[in-house]
Amino acid sequence: MLNSINSLPAVVTKEEVTETFRKLQDTICTALVHADGKAVFKEEHWQRHGGGGGRTRVMQNGNVIEKGGVNFSAVHGTLPESLRKALEVENPDFFATGVSIVMHPSNPWVPIIHMNVRYFEIENEVSWFGGGIDLTPHYVIDKDARFFHTKLKETCDKFSTAYYPTFKKEADEYFFIKHRDETRGIGGIFFDKLKENTLYSKRDNFELVRAIGNQFAPLYIQLINNNRDRSFSEQEKEWQLVRRGRYVEFNLVYDKGTRFGLETDGRTESILMSLPPLASWLYDFKPAIDSEEARTLGLLKKGIDWVSNKL
Amino acid sequence: MLNSINSLPAVVTKEEVTETFRKLQDTICTALVHADGKAVFKEEHWQRHGGGGGRTRVMQNGNVIEKGGVNFSAVHGTLPESLRKALEVENPDFFATGVSIVMHPSNPWVPIIHMNVRYFEIENEVSWFGGGIDLTPHYVIDKDARFFHTKLKETCDKFSTAYYPTFKKEADEYFFIKHRDETRGIGGIFFDKLKENTLYSKRDNFELVRAIGNQFAPLYIQLINNNRDRSFSEQEKEWQLVRRGRYVEFNLVYDKGTRFGLETDGRTESILMSLPPLASWLYDFKPAIDSEEARTLGLLKKGIDWVSNKL
Repeated sequence: MLNSINSLPAVVTKEEVTETFRKLQDTICTALVHADGKAVFKEEHWQRHGGGGGRTRVMQNGNVIEKGGVNFSAVHGTLPESLRKALEVENPDFFATGVSIVMHPSNPWVPIIHMNVRYFEIENEVSWFGGGIDLTPHYVIDKDARFFHTKLKETCDKFSTAYYPTFKKEADEYFFIKHRDETRGIGGIFFDKLKENTLYSKRDNFELVRAIGNQFAPLYIQLINNNRDRSFSEQEKEWQLVRRGRYVEFNLVYDKGTRFGLETDGRTESILMSLPPLASWLYDFKPAIDSEEARTLGLLKKGIDWVSNKL
Repeated sequence: MLNSINSLPAVVTKEEVTETFRKLQDTICTALVHADGKAVFKEEHWQRHGGGGGRTRVMQNGNVIEKGGVNFSAVHGTLPESLRKALEVENPDFFATGVSIVMHPSNPWVPIIHMNVRYFEIENEVSWFGGGIDLTPHYVIDKDARFFHTKLKETCDKFSTAYYPTFKKEADEYFFIKHRDETRGIGGIFFDKLKENTLYSKRDNFELVRAIGNQFAPLYIQLINNNRDRSFSEQEKEWQLVRRGRYVEFNLVYDKGTRFGLETDGRTESILMSLPPLASWLYDFKPAIDSEEARTLGLLKKGIDWVSNKL
């Protein structure tokens, strides 16, 4: 058990998780609006046929953020028989809540970011947390990459030093565009089905997820502020649009959340808020040898140690 | 049996089909270059690991065509056991050849078009043809839509009056973006696994596919010439980019050829030549009531009779 959280109640209820995620959406939105200085979020409340609903918030055409979404949802319903059996549960009634974020900045020196935290439960049977943050720089900036991964590692290390290496590897595997043989960006952390065990209680897992969620805004705002005022050329803007095209490819071809959402009749506009405002596909585009673009492409690989970062 | 083709040899070999498709690629490319008046095709020959290969041809930044590809391929290899069983064949050695085309024009009044003709065979066991043409206007122009469907119907009717209604319905079903509840465009014709039977020989089927292939260039060039000089506003250009975003969604989420190609390690740049040079996703974009954009959106439905076209 972890010292810092001894004062919190031992039992984690779905109400507490839901309320925490709802507030997390608020806190993050407030911080992003303040950092951007121009755009505000457009909010939409939606209901799910099967039960529950969500709050979709999207900002467009800001000083920094060209398009970004921060979604909160809390839904319940009945699992299809196949899924109930796969999960080995008696009760088919599930509950799921989460926050999902994707930000597409206008300046190509500011990276795209994604975060997701989520919780799933079958009452009295099973529950787990999942989540992740990953960064997709249009141009890899070494000190920002090191900063990003170091901060994620510090947060994970507070709970277990085994987490960062495991979750970092899972991110490398998950955020991978197989048909391009490229990672989506420089990865980050990713985990799913984190259940309580003899070492870590449900409270511990929840506090880990909370810590990751709370880290999002300061982490991304630091990366924004490092690069927002940097000037860029038309060629750099073009490269950004090509990288965004890859982001579209990942999300529509591989991303499990996106595909599951589209296949199960989710709210399309909330699911696809992750797609960029503008993207481009140039036939067989190859960056010039020794260019910044070629260097970034060379770094879109699994297994890079971004924390020690001897590039 | 059909009169006009009585003089051709009864047996259709894979060599004849391959040669016909290769020449079809040439004829179409020549016609498109002539019509465009500026862009030429960049050609790439590629080899497939398992056997065979193709000729990818892409044109970019023309007077009319912003990006377009005309691909020819002829490949052979060994079917995975599962597919061999599914097809109920003894011999796992397959041969497949085809021509695939997608054209993205720069002027939003000129429609996007797609065509595919293909042939598959397991020697001495089974063979079939497949194909289709479908049109994706950014703005539906009634007389062009009627012209397009009427011409396809005329070609099909030469072989069987049952073909157009069947193939038109299949196109409506196939070119459908489920998560948007929209068809990709105004459809066209689509068919797969067209095998010889008591009514139609393999020669008949091949001649149908040849006729469809030969129809592509004159049909599209007519649609180009009807609209290429029409001026357009920034707002109309923006709408074009949104429609292109839908095209990306269809191709990456649903198109069987695209997904099969990406999953089986096909040549990515040849497969994804179908993606537009520039596309956009605006959150929850809704065209103004009674606008041209709203009218087009209202016509992206299955089951419209474009030939009688009483819109």
